[in-house]
Amino acid sequence: MQALVYRGPGRKGLEERARPTLQQPGDAIVRVTRTTICGTDLHILKGDVPEVAPGTTLGHEGVGIVDAVGPAVSGLRPGDHVLISCITACGRCAWCRKAMYSHCADGGWLLGHRIDGTQAEYVRIPHADTSLHRIPAGADEEALVMLSDILPTGYECGVLNGKIAPGTSVAIVGAGPIGLAALLTAQFFTPASIVMIDLDEHRLALASRFGATAVVRAGADTVARVMALTGGLGADTVIEAVGIPATFELCEELVAPGGTIANIGVHGEKCDLHLERLWSHNITITTRLVDTVTIPQLMQAVGAGRLDAAQLITHRFPLARVMDAYDTFARAADTSALKVVIEVAAP
Amino acid sequence: MQALVYRGPGRKGLEERARPTLQQPGDAIVRVTRTTICGTDLHILKGDVPEVAPGTTLGHEGVGIVDAVGPAVSGLRPGDHVLISCITACGRCAWCRKAMYSHCADGGWLLGHRIDGTQAEYVRIPHADTSLHRIPAGADEEALVMLSDILPTGYECGVLNGKIAPGTSVAIVGAGPIGLAALLTAQFFTPASIVMIDLDEHRLALASRFGATAVVRAGADTVARVMALTGGLGADTVIEAVGIPATFELCEELVAPGGTIANIGVHGEKCDLHLERLWSHNITITTRLVDTVTIPQLMQAVGAGRLDAAQLITHRFPLARVMDAYDTFARAADTSALKVVIEVAAP
Repeated sequence: MQALVYRGPGRKGLEERARPTLQQPGDAIVRVTRTTICGTDLHILKGDVPEVAPGTTLGHEGVGIVDAVGPAVSGLRPGDHVLISCITACGRCAWCRKAMYSHCADGGWLLGHRIDGTQAEYVRIPHADTSLHRIPAGADEEALVMLSDILPTGYECGVLNGKIAPGTSVAIVGAGPIGLAALLTAQFFTPASIVMIDLDEHRLALASRFGATAVVRAGADTVARVMALTGGLGADTVIEAVGIPATFELCEELVAPGGTIANIGVHGEKCDLHLERLWSHNITITTRLVDTVTIPQLMQAVGAGRLDAAQLITHRFPLARVMDAYDTFARAADTSALKVVIEVAAP
Repeated sequence: MQALVYRGPGRKGLEERARPTLQQPGDAIVRVTRTTICGTDLHILKGDVPEVAPGTTLGHEGVGIVDAVGPAVSGLRPGDHVLISCITACGRCAWCRKAMYSHCADGGWLLGHRIDGTQAEYVRIPHADTSLHRIPAGADEEALVMLSDILPTGYECGVLNGKIAPGTSVAIVGAGPIGLAALLTAQFFTPASIVMIDLDEHRLALASRFGATAVVRAGADTVARVMALTGGLGADTVIEAVGIPATFELCEELVAPGGTIANIGVHGEKCDLHLERLWSHNITITTRLVDTVTIPQLMQAVGAGRLDAAQLITHRFPLARVMDAYDTFARAADTSALKVVIEVAAP
């Protein structure tokens, strides 16, 4: 089969690889129909995620058809149409039993990280019963690729952790795909305002189209402009969707007394926490690696027409052109790419 | 009347001052019977709280008897026995109406800060209806002095924000009076374990007497010892009760995945937030200036014998010896002082 393989920092290639086989009783083999690229895949390629061994197939998102199941799999059979969670969960350990799948003792983020991933014709999924989700008949398969990672991440880490509620004010720092995923799902809770902050005018225009009530081009006056938009108080919920110290520290300036900073960004370094100001501000800061516990809920929202997940998809490439797909995604500032779908096979 | 007056950094004195008078329709004048000294008073004396004007009477805790009320006061009358909240709350502004009294638009921490405080024979209390609490007949007045600030602070900022729940693990960094107040009120929720961490052996011995299940003398092996006590995971709730960068950063190392760091400490500088490790740990960090919304609840707990507030009191001085009281409190490492009560007058 064809698979996109990480060969070490800065190097990747579409290679012929052996098809995966069942290794554990709870495994399933999924024939991938569509997958996509995550910002995290770019981080791996830069060498920022050193635990990824050269030779690993990349990718942790996708949909497909169950090809084979191990003897312990009870809820799935070959031919089932499934969504692959980016988080593998045994469903049995102490973490899983409190719905913290991201920290599963025998799972967590495995695909395209600790084991071969989804940017291939076939992928092995451990703990298949609790790591795959059946796709309802008639669903828009392509849109559901957005539910493997990006939408549950924006929703769980940003919107739910951020305690967005009707009538409240929201600021989202970063209007990339993940910030836009938070913007889309924030609207479930009917906040009074959602301000998006970014450096890129094109992304801000998209944010307006996606439901932002105001946009702020990041600059020296960012704090003053957000304060002007929030009655001088700051936002009740501030979502960090970038992952660098400067943007997290901006969130510390934007949060209203009594408010919440919900971090989504993947951070590579520490930042300053201004406790000398914030100790008395009655604020909450949250961090989270997505648990994907909301995939069923989000799937229902998409099915009911309450969440237009497909809006996040800007480009499509066949697997044979996956190198172009990466190039398009990596040069998002020039290509205006949000999510790039890789079409592997017909469902 | 006699009042303890701040005269500028490092200087204070017991002075003869004019008795306060009603200034606003919602004011009450309270004849103080007992008051106490807070660590914050020592900070003021060091010059760390520059907005306190020389000439201000210190103190924001106490109990007394209502002496006079303004025409807008409806729930109190002269002769009522009352507990003074350290937080003055108008009860009407947007902050008060969401029970965030600490940020009251016409209140907050005023006593011994923006206006004259309680370390005097009489004190003016603005917004008396919502800033004083009637003391039930037969209550132990002295114990209730602990409900003006220290116990609600430990309870609201540490225990409630820390989401302590039955069966969970708790670590409290700092076994001074405020850490001990958190320790006492943490036990309302029956956690499985409470580890107290401090440098002072005497305070750790007290912590054991007050209900800690383990104590750790702070040192190079603090993290390893707490990990050994918590199954290698860290604590579900970590309470910061010191207020310096080193102790907050220790909390970052002690918190379990999925856990909460609840800050109580008053911080004078920023600290490092290790997002490069914590971004994926599904943790929560909270800060809070006490709102004192739990004073009625805590008063009932004391009345029912469920909270032994008096344990925190180690020394008593008459107002005439308030300088000795300060000295005893400031030299706590030598005197083993926790809370020092100043007896102003008979109730």
